Amino acid sequence: MAVYTKVSAETLASFLEGYDVGVLVSAKGIAEGVENSNYLVETERARFILTLYEKRVDERDLPYFLGLTDHLSRKGLPVPAPIADRSGQALQDLCGRKACLIEFLTGVSVAEPTPEQAAAAGRALAELHEGAADFDGRRANALSLDGWQELSAELMPQLPQVGEGLGALIAEEIAHLSSEWPRDLPSGTIHADLFPDNVLFSGREIGGIIDFYFACTDFLAYDLAVTHAAWAFGEDGTPLPQVGEALLEGYEAVRPLTPDETASFGLLCRGATGGERCGGCFKGARRG
Amino acid sequence: MAVYTKVSAETLASFLEGYDVGVLVSAKGIAEGVENSNYLVETERARFILTLYEKRVDERDLPYFLGLTDHLSRKGLPVPAPIADRSGQALQDLCGRKACLIEFLTGVSVAEPTPEQAAAAGRALAELHEGAADFDGRRANALSLDGWQELSAELMPQLPQVGEGLGALIAEEIAHLSSEWPRDLPSGTIHADLFPDNVLFSGREIGGIIDFYFACTDFLAYDLAVTHAAWAFGEDGTPLPQVGEALLEGYEAVRPLTPDETASFGLLCRGATGGERCGGCFKGARRG
Repeated sequence: MAVYTKVSAETLASFLEGYDVGVLVSAKGIAEGVENSNYLVETERARFILTLYEKRVDERDLPYFLGLTDHLSRKGLPVPAPIADRSGQALQDLCGRKACLIEFLTGVSVAEPTPEQAAAAGRALAELHEGAADFDGRRANALSLDGWQELSAELMPQLPQVGEGLGALIAEEIAHLSSEWPRDLPSGTIHADLFPDNVLFSGREIGGIIDFYFACTDFLAYDLAVTHAAWAFGEDGTPLPQVGEALLEGYEAVRPLTPDETASFGLLCRGATGGERCGGCFKGARRG
Repeated sequence: MAVYTKVSAETLASFLEGYDVGVLVSAKGIAEGVENSNYLVETERARFILTLYEKRVDERDLPYFLGLTDHLSRKGLPVPAPIADRSGQALQDLCGRKACLIEFLTGVSVAEPTPEQAAAAGRALAELHEGAADFDGRRANALSLDGWQELSAELMPQLPQVGEGLGALIAEEIAHLSSEWPRDLPSGTIHADLFPDNVLFSGREIGGIIDFYFACTDFLAYDLAVTHAAWAFGEDGTPLPQVGEALLEGYEAVRPLTPDETASFGLLCRGATGGERCGGCFKGARRG
């Protein structure tokens, strides 16, 4: 929620000369995303987001992320297109960081999604999955089984200070997930972070799906489980079953889950939530 | 440089219903100003800055600040107008803070002003002084002699840890300024914080003068001295005499200094800089 790398107006104006976008009119650092520095940049012709990638993003992943958003945007999905400079290059160097000028999409992210909005998000997620079916980039999911094991091993020595018995609880949960985790569900490119923050609504329509910096290759239904965990509970953890149902129905209206996906969905949700929110309050769990 | 108070899209949309500005289209928290939370808000019809006043701003000063920017904007100066709601009210309550919806002005603030840009800033400052001549609000300058005395008394016990002899140096400087400070220069409403950050350029023209939250009633020439201190030195303190000269010439092209102001200008600059930058590098000091 900050601008880590300061780009002066002079530097920005000369950076923009590399593009066919017109002259700089306005630029504001925006408090968006926890990972990167972002500016809302306006030229005579259009508005853009300028992102400078800070250290938490691995530079080697950037061609994958930008390739994916370019792919989805060319399909007409509401995904911000990376803008190529006059030489056709989207990924740039600026102020000691990798950087990219990106299409600006309007819309606002809602704090308390309605069932109608959740249904729209579900449809949009399924459309992303279908739109990315012929995208040939691959990236491992660092936040699935392997990642959990690594992370818990790393944190294990500190866990007793956080809560008594927490280490054992986590080890047990990971062992359970590892033994039960499905192996052959439909896989593809997933967003992996489709929290309400990352969906921009223009009225009832979705005007933008943003922040693809966790995108990776994994089970499509796991993406739906992560999205469900993010949408179907209030801030205090209260289940919002109508919102959760609407999300799943929206998704299945575009891409119905296979029987295997449906059977595994409860477990995927358990993985997505760390085991906390798998109380059978949603369709997937009831089915699974 | 942060958004301290989070306003959800739902809350913002309903807040905007109180205004005749159309429906919310987009909102981004912006990393601007150190004092307040700011959002760049777009409706169907226009763009605005929504400011939520955080604790460093005294609520009792807000009618002064908003009255001043309203006054200057009505005179056609490039100052962001506070927007009144349907009942004619500009100052609002939102998310536990005082808040105001404000006109959005385009332009970028330069990091390394050219003499031409400094001249434009000088002219704009003089135009502010003239435009505010019939503004009847009054506010004491908390950052002049009285404030310095108070601040130095408060900090005195800690100064020896910062630097040996610093306490004596500051006491001596304040005693000098107090005995020499002019008493009867032309006074009026001053911006008091016209750093390059607060001037938005659209090409060669000034499209916006922003951040009036230090504005107060004081010597007009002191405002020029503060502005000079902010513009006429590089980041490392190197004097930029051409920039400084251009600023003063720009100012005097609109409002020539009186002989008394000219005579006092060196001392005002010494006050504005804490004595550090009064090396005679500028016209005022050479004259004074």
